[in-house]
Amino acid sequence: MKLTILGCYSATPRTFTNPTSQVLEIRNHLFLIDCGEGTQVQLRKNKIKFSQIKHIFISHLHGDHFFGLPGLVSTFRLLGRESELHIYGPKGIKEAITLLLKLGNSWTNYPLVFHELDSKESEFIFEDDKVGVHTIPLKHRVYTNGFLFKEKVAPRKLDVEAVAEYKVDKSQFNNIKAGADVVLDSGERIMNSKLTLEPPLPKSYAFCSDTVYSESIIPIIKNVDMLYHESTFLETELHLCEKTKHSTAKQAAQIAKMANAGNLILGHYSTRYKSIELFREEALKVFPNVELADDGKSFEL
Amino acid sequence: MKLTILGCYSATPRTFTNPTSQVLEIRNHLFLIDCGEGTQVQLRKNKIKFSQIKHIFISHLHGDHFFGLPGLVSTFRLLGRESELHIYGPKGIKEAITLLLKLGNSWTNYPLVFHELDSKESEFIFEDDKVGVHTIPLKHRVYTNGFLFKEKVAPRKLDVEAVAEYKVDKSQFNNIKAGADVVLDSGERIMNSKLTLEPPLPKSYAFCSDTVYSESIIPIIKNVDMLYHESTFLETELHLCEKTKHSTAKQAAQIAKMANAGNLILGHYSTRYKSIELFREEALKVFPNVELADDGKSFEL
Repeated sequence: MKLTILGCYSATPRTFTNPTSQVLEIRNHLFLIDCGEGTQVQLRKNKIKFSQIKHIFISHLHGDHFFGLPGLVSTFRLLGRESELHIYGPKGIKEAITLLLKLGNSWTNYPLVFHELDSKESEFIFEDDKVGVHTIPLKHRVYTNGFLFKEKVAPRKLDVEAVAEYKVDKSQFNNIKAGADVVLDSGERIMNSKLTLEPPLPKSYAFCSDTVYSESIIPIIKNVDMLYHESTFLETELHLCEKTKHSTAKQAAQIAKMANAGNLILGHYSTRYKSIELFREEALKVFPNVELADDGKSFEL
Repeated sequence: MKLTILGCYSATPRTFTNPTSQVLEIRNHLFLIDCGEGTQVQLRKNKIKFSQIKHIFISHLHGDHFFGLPGLVSTFRLLGRESELHIYGPKGIKEAITLLLKLGNSWTNYPLVFHELDSKESEFIFEDDKVGVHTIPLKHRVYTNGFLFKEKVAPRKLDVEAVAEYKVDKSQFNNIKAGADVVLDSGERIMNSKLTLEPPLPKSYAFCSDTVYSESIIPIIKNVDMLYHESTFLETELHLCEKTKHSTAKQAAQIAKMANAGNLILGHYSTRYKSIELFREEALKVFPNVELADDGKSFEL
C-alpha cells in the first residue's frame, strides 16, 4: 500500500503548494482521494499513470477538494479513455459535473458512474477482491466524509519447500492454494496450513479531512495502520477551530492515540505558519509516530 | 496597454503548459480574459495584483477556458474581497458558478455580477471612461465570443511650454485641459490646440480564441493594433480544422492580413508539435508581424 500526496495545503492553490488530493495504490489498484484544482498536473508531475484510476472519492464539495475534478474528467475524455470511471461523493456532485460537461457540449465517451452519498452513518461503499472502502462521517461546514480503505486478507501462498518435502504432485497446487488439505499415497493427511504460508497482514488507511475534533470517528478507524488527519491549525489558533470546523495538530494526535493508529500523517495546513515542522512538534507531545504530508511525498505501508 | 499571457496551450493543463488565460492592462485597469484551470496560480507566479481585477471575460464554456473560474471566484472570497466582480460569458455561466458555490455553501461576500451573452451579433458589452469592449462572434463547437478592447481617446494634455510662453495664469489650466480656448488680457484668443498636446493614439486589442477560419470577423477587428488569433494547428493538420472548429497558423495570418492588423499573436497550440516556432514560420509566409504567445510572456503596445 502506497500513499502519494499530490496536495495537502488548505484553502487556495498557490505557487508552491496545492490543495488536497492523494493517490492510494493498493496491490496495483489506484484510488484518487479528493481532487483540488491542479490535481491533473500534480498527477503528471508525480508520474502517476492516471489513466489507471478507476475510482475517485470526494470528501466534500469545497473547492479545495473538488475543483480539479471537472478538468480531470474532461482530460480523460481527451485522452481517449474507454473504461468506466466511478465517482463517490456528496449528493450534488453528479448535478455539478453533469452541468459543466453539458455547457461545454463535451460529455464523456467513457461511462461515468456517480455514487452519491448522503448518509450520516458510516457506509460500506466499495468492494472488490482486494479492498473494501467505508465512509467516515466527519463534522465540517458542509456534508463531509472521510474514507477508510481496508485491504482484504490475501490468499495463503504455496510453501514451495513444504510441497517439495512432502513430494506433493503439481496437479494439487491449485487445490492447495484454494485451501485444501492433501492426502498422500500413504494415506497421511497433510493440513493446508503446513503446505502454505501466512499472507501478509491486511493493511488499512483512513483519510480524515476536513473535520472539527470528533471522537465519534474512533470506533470506525480503531487500530488503523495509517491515519491521515487534518491539522489546519496549531493550538495557538484553537479558537478558530469551532467556527471553521477544523482541527489542530494536537487534536489530530489525540484522535490517533485514542484510535490506536499505527502512525499519523498530518496535513491540510493553513499557510499562515512559517514551517510545517511546528505541526509535528505539537502532535509529538501527544502521539509518538507523526509524519508530515507534503506535496509530492509518498508513504508506504 | 500590456497583455500578459498566463496560458496559451490547447486542451489540457500539463506540467509546463497552461490552458488559455490572459490579463490585459489598460491604463491601470486589469481585465482577465478566459480562465483555464490553474489561472489563479499563474496570476500569482506572474506577480499580478489580481485583487484589482474587476472584469472577467469568458469566451466559451470549454474546460480549458473556464475551469479555473470557480476557484478564482472562491479565492477572492477567502482573500476578503469586497468590491464587485463582473463576469461576462455565455448563457449558462451564472448557473454553473452559482451551483458550485451553493454546493460548497460558500457564496461570495462580495457582489458577483453576471453578464450573460447569447447574441450571434457583435455587441457593445462594457464601457468606462478609458475603454470599451465589443464581442466578436466566433465559430466554434459551442457558442463562443472573442473580445475587442478599444481604448478611448485620452484628454489632450497641457503644453507646459506653450502656457509659459503665453503667460497663461494657472487658474486657467483646468479649463484648458477641459478643452477651452484662452483670451489673454490683450484680448487675443489663443486656440486650445496651441496650448495642449495631442494625446497618444488610442490602442486596440482583439482576442480571438477558439474559432474555425471565419472572414465574418474582419469588419469587427479591422485595423486593430494587436490581434491574438488561435492557431491550434499547422496546415499539415488542416483536415482537422473543420471537425474541431479550429484554425491553422496560416489561416490566422490570413485573417490578420485582411484585417490590416498591426501585429498578430499566435496561440492555443496543439501540443503535438515539437516547437511553437513552426507556427511563426508558417504565418510569416502570409503576414509580416507575427509574435508567439507563451506562458508568462508579455506584449506591450
